[in-house]
Amino acid sequence: MPQTKNKQWIYARKPEGQVTAAHFDSAESEIPELQDGEVLVRTTLLSLDPASRAWMAGRTYRSMLEPGEVMAGWGLGEVVKSNAEKFSTGDLVSGEFGWQKYAVQPARALTKHDRRHKPEHIIGVLGITGLTAYFGMLDVGRPRPGETVLVSAAAGAVGSIAGQIAKIAGCRVVGTTGGAEKCRWLVDELGFDAAIDYKAGGLAHEIRKACPDGIDVYFDNTGGDVLAVALARMNLWGRVACCGNVSQYNAAAPSGGPAGVPGFLVTKRIRMEGFVVMDFYQRRAQAEAALGAWVEAGTLKAPVDIVEGFDKMPVALEGLFAGKNKGKLMVRV
Amino acid sequence: MPQTKNKQWIYARKPEGQVTAAHFDSAESEIPELQDGEVLVRTTLLSLDPASRAWMAGRTYRSMLEPGEVMAGWGLGEVVKSNAEKFSTGDLVSGEFGWQKYAVQPARALTKHDRRHKPEHIIGVLGITGLTAYFGMLDVGRPRPGETVLVSAAAGAVGSIAGQIAKIAGCRVVGTTGGAEKCRWLVDELGFDAAIDYKAGGLAHEIRKACPDGIDVYFDNTGGDVLAVALARMNLWGRVACCGNVSQYNAAAPSGGPAGVPGFLVTKRIRMEGFVVMDFYQRRAQAEAALGAWVEAGTLKAPVDIVEGFDKMPVALEGLFAGKNKGKLMVRV
Repeated sequence: MPQTKNKQWIYARKPEGQVTAAHFDSAESEIPELQDGEVLVRTTLLSLDPASRAWMAGRTYRSMLEPGEVMAGWGLGEVVKSNAEKFSTGDLVSGEFGWQKYAVQPARALTKHDRRHKPEHIIGVLGITGLTAYFGMLDVGRPRPGETVLVSAAAGAVGSIAGQIAKIAGCRVVGTTGGAEKCRWLVDELGFDAAIDYKAGGLAHEIRKACPDGIDVYFDNTGGDVLAVALARMNLWGRVACCGNVSQYNAAAPSGGPAGVPGFLVTKRIRMEGFVVMDFYQRRAQAEAALGAWVEAGTLKAPVDIVEGFDKMPVALEGLFAGKNKGKLMVRV
Repeated sequence: MPQTKNKQWIYARKPEGQVTAAHFDSAESEIPELQDGEVLVRTTLLSLDPASRAWMAGRTYRSMLEPGEVMAGWGLGEVVKSNAEKFSTGDLVSGEFGWQKYAVQPARALTKHDRRHKPEHIIGVLGITGLTAYFGMLDVGRPRPGETVLVSAAAGAVGSIAGQIAKIAGCRVVGTTGGAEKCRWLVDELGFDAAIDYKAGGLAHEIRKACPDGIDVYFDNTGGDVLAVALARMNLWGRVACCGNVSQYNAAAPSGGPAGVPGFLVTKRIRMEGFVVMDFYQRRAQAEAALGAWVEAGTLKAPVDIVEGFDKMPVALEGLFAGKNKGKLMVRV
């Protein structure tokens, strides 16, 4: 065990609206002694996820974050010391480490990884991010060749993968994102058929123009305006895969839901289905194999946006909600 | 062909809010000569359906009704004259006759019925109404024994059947309706486990009390407040079968959608799915057989509310939206 202190970011104050760096305090603490079955991990990459704002607002698929806790988050790390049979010093592992340099974890909470893939891919396209896009698009959205698929927050970690999976499935794929530069990137770098800057105005008109045959699958990362417009433009038997609601996470008072619910759902027989990636974990190996093969073949690009330095964690999260990243945002500890 | 004039109700004026008798004009017309393949039907029972208000508001699963047309609607009748091979004088047939005493129909638009079942059951529990409840509950809602099922507009034609089907499936069934009398009727006559008067106030509290283990399936006939409360009370992996939106049909300006969309859908992995019964028609025989057997065995009650006289059509429709009927509302022509 290293003769060193642990460094942590504490979720210190509950945000009313936008989450900023001011809601976190840095802290130092002793690294606790390992109990039987526990493993000490040194974190190397920490993932930044839009869902973290939802964790602060209430109970989601996890209990609500309470001020005073180490900020929650997923990451990649190396085993420094192990009191568990399954793990040895030097093992590459992922888990819900929280925002800290060292994490003591029960062995059952860790996943071991080989070193065949790049570390940033393990917590990106081959991790929760990629699995979310894979199961959400293919199992919930169920796109068929020739259909039109709309993806919101398409330049984000999940959206950028989800859109490319729909392209692999043979669909026309349209993404929404903030700003002309990210629009160009979606089309030129990731192969989207069209991209729409939701900040530029005329959203309904732009979506109509980009989806002349209507929308068959909408992969919804945002809720809000894009969802409302998409519902009006959905085709019969359309599917909405509800992945996230990032347009509302920072809202002090969430806006009402889309007026097309339930009216459009009935008349257009729309299936709107929320999902959480953990529910698909029994099929994780299948998805990882497919995603890994696509990445190796070059048919799936796995863009990452790496911020250097553990001290940058809160600033990086602020940037995430400002839409500064392209692809998967993470911090190298 | 009878030497008689046809009597019709014309959809004369588009309602802004509530539809009333004042939106219809009575008319007389000649009965047209039959073309090849056509059948002349004398209507005997005409169905009154909440969806008829939606047909006036815009395109649904059918094109929008335009003022000046004969009011649309389903019914039962007898063949008076046939220029089609498949039909003979005296045959009992159902179809989309519209609000008129005589209807000329292409043969392909008619369904022939035997006289084993009561006429009011043919256009009720064994017709669109029952099929809607059957496929909506079993195929879209998918209740499992021991689950809690909530049904809105539960004293209505579809709701009263849908709730009883969920009972047959082994569920705890709770219904919402307007007024204490209809609540008693749901529990005492139809065997619902509990009923809630949505007009009495405290809807969220009452639903929580009646559904102590949460809601697994919500069969939604209304949208609006009940939908919003149900979403907040749904269990993980809950299902919302979106059948109708009657709370909004008469609204001049529809209210916003439920604020729980898409937030609750994601965190609770809720599937919310609209359906239209026509999509299940290839399995119509299966459903009719099951519904008929339940009715004959007495496990499914098929309550009907019959208004006497073709001249009462507009008044009966007004009554439908005032929630006056219990079970399937129809007019004997």
